[in-house]
Amino acid sequence: MKVVKFGGSSLANGEQFKKVIQIVTSDPSRQVIITSAPGKRFAEDTKVTDLLIAYAEHFLDYEDTSAIQAVIFSRYQEIAQTFELPADQLVWLKKELRKLQEKTYPNAAYLLAAFKAHGEYFNARLLTLILNHLGVPARFVDPREIGLLVTSDPNNASVLPDTYENFEKFKYGSEKLILPGFFGVTAEGEIATFSRGGSDITGAIVARGLHAELYENFTDVDAIYAANPRLVKNPYAITKMTYREMRELSYAGFSVFHDEAIVPAIEGRVKINVKNTNHPDRPGTMIIPYQEFTPLTRVTGITSSKHFAALYLHKFLLNKGAGLTLKILNILYKHGISYEHMPSGIDDLTIIFDKSQLTAEKKQAVSRDIRAALRPDELSWIDDYALIMIVGEGMHNRIGIMKDIILAISDHNINIHMINQGASEISIMLGTKSADADRAVKYIYEAFF
Amino acid sequence: MKVVKFGGSSLANGEQFKKVIQIVTSDPSRQVIITSAPGKRFAEDTKVTDLLIAYAEHFLDYEDTSAIQAVIFSRYQEIAQTFELPADQLVWLKKELRKLQEKTYPNAAYLLAAFKAHGEYFNARLLTLILNHLGVPARFVDPREIGLLVTSDPNNASVLPDTYENFEKFKYGSEKLILPGFFGVTAEGEIATFSRGGSDITGAIVARGLHAELYENFTDVDAIYAANPRLVKNPYAITKMTYREMRELSYAGFSVFHDEAIVPAIEGRVKINVKNTNHPDRPGTMIIPYQEFTPLTRVTGITSSKHFAALYLHKFLLNKGAGLTLKILNILYKHGISYEHMPSGIDDLTIIFDKSQLTAEKKQAVSRDIRAALRPDELSWIDDYALIMIVGEGMHNRIGIMKDIILAISDHNINIHMINQGASEISIMLGTKSADADRAVKYIYEAFF
Repeated sequence: MKVVKFGGSSLANGEQFKKVIQIVTSDPSRQVIITSAPGKRFAEDTKVTDLLIAYAEHFLDYEDTSAIQAVIFSRYQEIAQTFELPADQLVWLKKELRKLQEKTYPNAAYLLAAFKAHGEYFNARLLTLILNHLGVPARFVDPREIGLLVTSDPNNASVLPDTYENFEKFKYGSEKLILPGFFGVTAEGEIATFSRGGSDITGAIVARGLHAELYENFTDVDAIYAANPRLVKNPYAITKMTYREMRELSYAGFSVFHDEAIVPAIEGRVKINVKNTNHPDRPGTMIIPYQEFTPLTRVTGITSSKHFAALYLHKFLLNKGAGLTLKILNILYKHGISYEHMPSGIDDLTIIFDKSQLTAEKKQAVSRDIRAALRPDELSWIDDYALIMIVGEGMHNRIGIMKDIILAISDHNINIHMINQGASEISIMLGTKSADADRAVKYIYEAFF
Repeated sequence: MKVVKFGGSSLANGEQFKKVIQIVTSDPSRQVIITSAPGKRFAEDTKVTDLLIAYAEHFLDYEDTSAIQAVIFSRYQEIAQTFELPADQLVWLKKELRKLQEKTYPNAAYLLAAFKAHGEYFNARLLTLILNHLGVPARFVDPREIGLLVTSDPNNASVLPDTYENFEKFKYGSEKLILPGFFGVTAEGEIATFSRGGSDITGAIVARGLHAELYENFTDVDAIYAANPRLVKNPYAITKMTYREMRELSYAGFSVFHDEAIVPAIEGRVKINVKNTNHPDRPGTMIIPYQEFTPLTRVTGITSSKHFAALYLHKFLLNKGAGLTLKILNILYKHGISYEHMPSGIDDLTIIFDKSQLTAEKKQAVSRDIRAALRPDELSWIDDYALIMIVGEGMHNRIGIMKDIILAISDHNINIHMINQGASEISIMLGTKSADADRAVKYIYEAFF
C-alpha cells in the first residue's frame, strides 16, 4: 500500500484534479491520499489557505466576510463543475464555510488554525465526492476520526505518539481513503495545524502509522535538484538521496519537502518518492535510508537560506565563566527565542537566529538584558545573514570537499562570516551576508557538477 | 618605570640570579621586579613549586616532612651562597618554611595555596637581601602590604578591582621594589594563588596598577615564535604582535605567556616585551595595542593544544526545542563543568571541553543526565581532541587564508573534525584528533612562512 500526497498546485483546479485522479486510479496500491488545499493556478493567484487566513482576519476585525467566503467557495465550485458534480452536492461546503464563524474557539490562535485547516478538509471531502461520482470506491477519513493527535500549539503543532496506537486500530477495506493534510486534533478536541506546508507531515505520519511500503509526494517539479533552478541553469536532478541529506538540505532552503516530514518517515522506514503530478511517469527523486544508498556524487545538493540574523558578542575572557552562555541562553529562553547555531571564538560568540522570531522590540530587549548580564565589550547585530549548506553522503574526504568549496569562491570576493564544519558527517555549513549567498551557491555548484 | 618579571628558569639558581641582577641594575627604569619560584636547573630537576606541593601533601598525609623541607631550603641556600650572603641571613627562611605547618587554614585547598605561594615569596625576599647585600637599594613588597586583593578561589583566584585603588595609594622612592608573583590575599586575609604560571598575571596587574611604561617579561626564549620549535625547524621569531593575537595563541598552546595576564595589560594599555634572561640584548617580542600595529605577515602564529575532549550528540530535531541546549548547559553547570566550544549541525551538537575538568565519573554522570533529559540517538566521547589556532591581524582575506590552510593539509590524510571560522576576525580554529595535530601545524606553518 502506498500513501500518496498531493501538493497545492496539484489540486489547484479541475484540470489538476483530473491528473490526480488519473494517478490515483492507475495504481490500485495508491490507496491512501493526502490532500493539500487548492494552491495557485497562475503566478498572481492566491492560495486557498491565504484566502482562509484573510477570512479569519476579516471576521476577527468584525468586517464583512461574504465576499471572501464567495471567493473561497468558487474555488471548490470550479473543481466540482469540471467533473459535473451536481450543485446540491456542494451545499454542505458553503454551509460549513459560513459556520466557521459560529463556532467557539479557546482563542484567536485556535480560530485561525480551524479556519486554515478547512482548505485541506474541503479538498479531501470534495475529492471523495468526485471519486464516488466517477464510480471509484472512496471514503473520507477525518483526522479526528482516525485519531491524529497533536500538541496544543494551535498553529505549530507536533504529532503525539498516541497517534500511532490509534492508527493501529483503524479498520479499512479496499476503498481509497482520502485524508486532509496539515492538521490534527488536540487532547482538548480542538483543531491545530502543523507549520505551513504541513500536509507533507500528515502524509509522513499516515505512511508510518499505516505501514505504507512507499510515500509518494506529488508536487510540481520533476525531481529534487542539486541546486535551486533559479540560481543555476539546468541543475542536476537527484535520483536518490538519503533521509538525512534531505533533512539537512530542507533545513537551509530546499523547499520541495517539509523538513519535519522526514522524521516520521525515518521512524517508520518508509521510503519517499518525490514526483511530478504533471509528469507522473518520470522517476522523480527517491529518499531512502542510508543503509541502502550508494552515493554517485561527492556532493548531493547545495542550498542557501536567507532567513537568518546573527548577534555578535565580544568580551575578554568571555569563555572563562562557566555560566556565561547559560546566562545568554536563559535570556533567550525568557524572551521565547530559540537559536540555530552558536560558533564561538576565544573571546567572542556569534549567535545565529531564525529571523522570523526577531522583532525590533525583541532585539532591543535581548540586547539590553545581555548588556546588563554580561557587560560585553561589543554587541552588534547582523540582520541579513544567510546559511549555505553543502550536503552529501559521498563526502568521505571532507577536507577535499572543503578545498573545492574554498577554491570555488575564493576568487569572487565573497565574504564568508562562518565556516561550520561541525559535527555532521555529511554537510558543511557556511555563513555569509544574504547579498553574497546566491553567487556563492552558483560557484560552489559549478565546482561539483 | 618598567615592571620586570622573571620566570622560574631565570631564577633557578645563583648563576641565573646573577643575570637577573645584571639586567635589573643595568637600567634604572627597571624598578619593579616580580619573582617566580626557582624553576628547573636541568631537564630532570624539580621546580620549587612542585616541591612545596609535595611538602603540603606529605603534611596532610601526616608523613614526615623534614627531608622535603631540607631540599626546598637547599635550593635557596645555594642561591644565597653564590652571593656569599651570611648564613644567618637565611635563618628566617628555614623557620618560616617549617612554620607553614603550624598555621591554621580554612581548609586543605587554602593550605595548598599558602604552601605553593611561598616559592615566590621566599625568592622575592631572597632577591631583596642579595640586592641589599650588593649595595643596591631594594625593598621587599608583600602582596598583602600593597593590597593585591583576589577572589576566594584558593588555587585559581582572579584579581579584584579594589586592588587598583590600593595601588594608587602605594608610596615608594627610587629603590627597587621586589614583589613575589603568583598570589594575592582574599577579603578574609588568606593567601590565594592564580592558576599555575600566574606570576605573569601578577606582573601585568602590577604594571597596570603602578602605570608602568613597559612590562618586561623575562623568560628563557629569545622571542615568541610563529610555531612551536619542537614541531617546526627554526621557526620565524615574531618581533611584534597585538594583545589579542597573543591571547588567541596562548589559549591554544602558546605557553610563553599566561593568557590571563593579557587582560590587565590591555586594560592599562601597558606594552609587553617578552625577552630572554640569557640574551637580554636581543629585542624579543613586543606585544602592543592593535592601533599601533602594522602586520608584516598574513599569519602571525600557528599553535595547537591537545588538552581537549569532545562530546558528540545526535538527535533528530535536536535544534527544534528552544530549551534543549539550555538543558545541556544546566547539566554541565550542575556538574561544575564549563565548555569551550559548541559547534552545531542540523541535528547534532559537539561540545568541546578542557579535558582537565573531566574525570571518568564526571563523564559518566554527564552522559547519564543528558541521556535522561534529551534521549539522544547517539552520544559519544572523543577523548583526544586537539584545537589548532591560526592567528593573524593580517588575515584581511580570511577565505584566502582558509584556501592556503586547506591546500596545505588536504594531501596529508589529516582528518579535520571541525572548522570554526566563527566570530573572531583574526583567527581560524580547526578541531582534529590529537594524533594529527602536530603534523597539521607543521604543514600549515610551511604554507605561510
